[in-house]
Amino acid sequence: MATPTRIGLAGLAVMGQNLALNIADKGFPISIYNRTTSKVDETIERAKLEGNLPVYGFHDPESFVNSIQKPRVIIMLVKAGAPVDQTIKTLSVYLEKGDCIIDGGNEWYENTERRQKAMAELGLLYLGMGVSGGEEGARHGPSLMPGGSFEAFKYIEDILLKVAAQVPDSGPCVTYVGKGGSGNFVKMVHNGIEYGDMQLIAEAYDVLKSVGGLSNEELHQVFSEWNKGELLSFLIEITADIFGIKDDKGDGYLVDKVLDKTGMKGTGKWTVQQAADLSIAAPTIASSLDSRFLSGLKEERVKAAKVFKSSGVGDILTDQVVNKEKLIDDVRKALYASKICSYAQGMNLIRAKSIEKGWELQLGELARIWKGGCIIRAIFLDRIKKAYDRNPDLANLLVDPEFAKEMIERQSAWRRVVCLAINSGISTPGMSSSLAYFDTYRRESLPANLVQAQRDYFGAHTYERIDIPGSFHTEWFKIAKQSKI
Amino acid sequence: MATPTRIGLAGLAVMGQNLALNIADKGFPISIYNRTTSKVDETIERAKLEGNLPVYGFHDPESFVNSIQKPRVIIMLVKAGAPVDQTIKTLSVYLEKGDCIIDGGNEWYENTERRQKAMAELGLLYLGMGVSGGEEGARHGPSLMPGGSFEAFKYIEDILLKVAAQVPDSGPCVTYVGKGGSGNFVKMVHNGIEYGDMQLIAEAYDVLKSVGGLSNEELHQVFSEWNKGELLSFLIEITADIFGIKDDKGDGYLVDKVLDKTGMKGTGKWTVQQAADLSIAAPTIASSLDSRFLSGLKEERVKAAKVFKSSGVGDILTDQVVNKEKLIDDVRKALYASKICSYAQGMNLIRAKSIEKGWELQLGELARIWKGGCIIRAIFLDRIKKAYDRNPDLANLLVDPEFAKEMIERQSAWRRVVCLAINSGISTPGMSSSLAYFDTYRRESLPANLVQAQRDYFGAHTYERIDIPGSFHTEWFKIAKQSKI
Repeated sequence: MATPTRIGLAGLAVMGQNLALNIADKGFPISIYNRTTSKVDETIERAKLEGNLPVYGFHDPESFVNSIQKPRVIIMLVKAGAPVDQTIKTLSVYLEKGDCIIDGGNEWYENTERRQKAMAELGLLYLGMGVSGGEEGARHGPSLMPGGSFEAFKYIEDILLKVAAQVPDSGPCVTYVGKGGSGNFVKMVHNGIEYGDMQLIAEAYDVLKSVGGLSNEELHQVFSEWNKGELLSFLIEITADIFGIKDDKGDGYLVDKVLDKTGMKGTGKWTVQQAADLSIAAPTIASSLDSRFLSGLKEERVKAAKVFKSSGVGDILTDQVVNKEKLIDDVRKALYASKICSYAQGMNLIRAKSIEKGWELQLGELARIWKGGCIIRAIFLDRIKKAYDRNPDLANLLVDPEFAKEMIERQSAWRRVVCLAINSGISTPGMSSSLAYFDTYRRESLPANLVQAQRDYFGAHTYERIDIPGSFHTEWFKIAKQSKI
Repeated sequence: MATPTRIGLAGLAVMGQNLALNIADKGFPISIYNRTTSKVDETIERAKLEGNLPVYGFHDPESFVNSIQKPRVIIMLVKAGAPVDQTIKTLSVYLEKGDCIIDGGNEWYENTERRQKAMAELGLLYLGMGVSGGEEGARHGPSLMPGGSFEAFKYIEDILLKVAAQVPDSGPCVTYVGKGGSGNFVKMVHNGIEYGDMQLIAEAYDVLKSVGGLSNEELHQVFSEWNKGELLSFLIEITADIFGIKDDKGDGYLVDKVLDKTGMKGTGKWTVQQAADLSIAAPTIASSLDSRFLSGLKEERVKAAKVFKSSGVGDILTDQVVNKEKLIDDVRKALYASKICSYAQGMNLIRAKSIEKGWELQLGELARIWKGGCIIRAIFLDRIKKAYDRNPDLANLLVDPEFAKEMIERQSAWRRVVCLAINSGISTPGMSSSLAYFDTYRRESLPANLVQAQRDYFGAHTYERIDIPGSFHTEWFKIAKQSKI
């Protein structure tokens, strides 16, 4: 090959392979490299089969780097952490000033910022780019969240605009997110929100199945129906699909054979930890993480179920008269209202970090690039974009006039569902923590006055008053002791 | 002064001053030092007033250190972080091999471990010791959680045994916690549990006041009554006190004048972040942290309340017929059941960290030293100690036979209270997340099968089956697409 390629990609696991083919498919000749060289040949084979795409494979890093036009751009799609550092080390030997490396993995944003600095010292540019959409998205149009060097972004903007998912009326699902590690941070929160969405859907499933007695066939119908309305989204769509799939290893439906143990990879955990760090309440996302933790304790749960079942606790109250149609409608509303709370938490987390780091992130623009390609893609995100268009300084999605109206319309159904679950001995941690978030946020006066009084009582932490400005301390103990005498 | 003192204490803010007087009061001559020397004189003055206690003040670090008998032991009570490093730097110049420094502040356990290593290189011993009990506890008997050098612990064990709170039938509230930063870690979780207790009490107050319509006088009576039974504890006692105190700046009760904004200092946040790190669900503690965050958004809450009130949302349903006696009884049971969940979370967090670090912490012994002196001191802790005595490997407090029985007896009341709050538009995030924790933990089959199916659908993350061992992957998308044709 004499003519240099436009771009390079290193790391040919599922995501990397598909993203490389996507780039080539959009007309950009691409060089590819992987430490295990069989992956290179495998990808070249796929490129041929999928239409003789302009993919050029290399078995050594030097010829890989040299095959790319200058200034060179190389996307890495390797495991976060040490493998990224290793890949940078391998490639940077052959790179020249002005070249650029893009990390497309789920990296911790601080690692990206550390590498940006190190690269800058070598005269190299660096981007941390969130890539969402799984295998399918990577191949046919992911949501891309590049952050870091604006110069590097501009240089490959034409590629990203074509490679990203295309949403009618709102454009390609990519934007320059911001400086530093903001691309990774935003992708991390995207994943946290994804955890929340999945948990809320699981709870809807649980209530409909365990209390409402819906069959998989009925669930398939319900979720298919929901996917035509306000809940229209990728996750609702695949949920409908899942309920329609029969087990090929036995009788019945496959979903009933899947073990109730959920894996995780770290971004949900980081989201919860960052929320705590930035004093942002994110109970919906936190409850989805806790649910994954507890799902992992299968053996403990089986034992605990025995302990309590023998005492008659925890039986689903099958004598409750449930109107299926009404229940389905209520659950849909509860799911939607909870979802608004979850996104409000995620968006406020992004804003808090943006302020801390001076990133100047545009919340509405982030909602726009999540409308297609990524796992949380949904018609709902358009409403979020519009809420921030109406008011970029919106304190919380809940108080946007449109969302507030939607909450008001759904709150009765929401309360019914959570109470029904509680009285049925079923947990809906995502829905109930979302409801608590709503009821706390819209409360003028919380019982936090007592907590602050307690803190001043035992720790002299002082308190403010509602009627007089200033900071006060009371000798509660002495006063109480006197009155006891 | 010719005879050297037994021990030294540096840092004479509220906690340091009181702990120094406590040590002297127990018959151990103590040297004291503070960078701002007026604090030294102030403490000496107090020592005289409180019975000519053997406290010796110094205005410079050298004579302070030289006044202590060898090997010297110095307790620091300064702000966590940089001030601790600064104090160590100041003192260690004059210390000799075999001397020991004890950090009695709320330090992050990793800082303690870093300092232990640095001290060891100088031949110095180091302890990180959690001290709980506030001003009163420090003066008359705190709960002490020393971790680090066992040699150093043995050298001052006689002092700690006398200085700590004394609980009849269970001894002084101090034990050698374990190696490394375990003393700080255990104190951190203690504080996280304290957050949970305070939040649960605030919710009980809220339901009784806002739904039950109880006056401060009635609340004072209720909490006083509760403090005679299963809830007997320092926090319930001071809560009863608080409701009895009139405002000295105006009409009515002081608690009603305290602004509903709660401060915090970091240990609650660390507890939540550590729980996430160790895959431990700690929703009760997390909800107490979130409630503090949301309490801080007073201005936003006032605005949000207006948005929703104008639409009729969020009015307390005053037309609900509430039987006060029954409600008080229900709330007591809900509070107690939630408390069990919260402690189960905290204890499991400590165990997870102990396993990770090889600390070999004794959960029952920790419950014992929390029985007196500290903020969470309660008769309830004796039940926890006994649960671990019965079974040191207890997977979760919930499944201890005694606690399981208590949960069973209280669960109906608990569900009633949470649903009443939900239907009244009041949030009880601590009680409802505790209930969700209980209902999740005792559930044999969770809807996590759907979540794992979703993860396999979009990310090929694989799943396990309930009927066949192994790891499986299904081409969900392809199957669903085929069936749609």
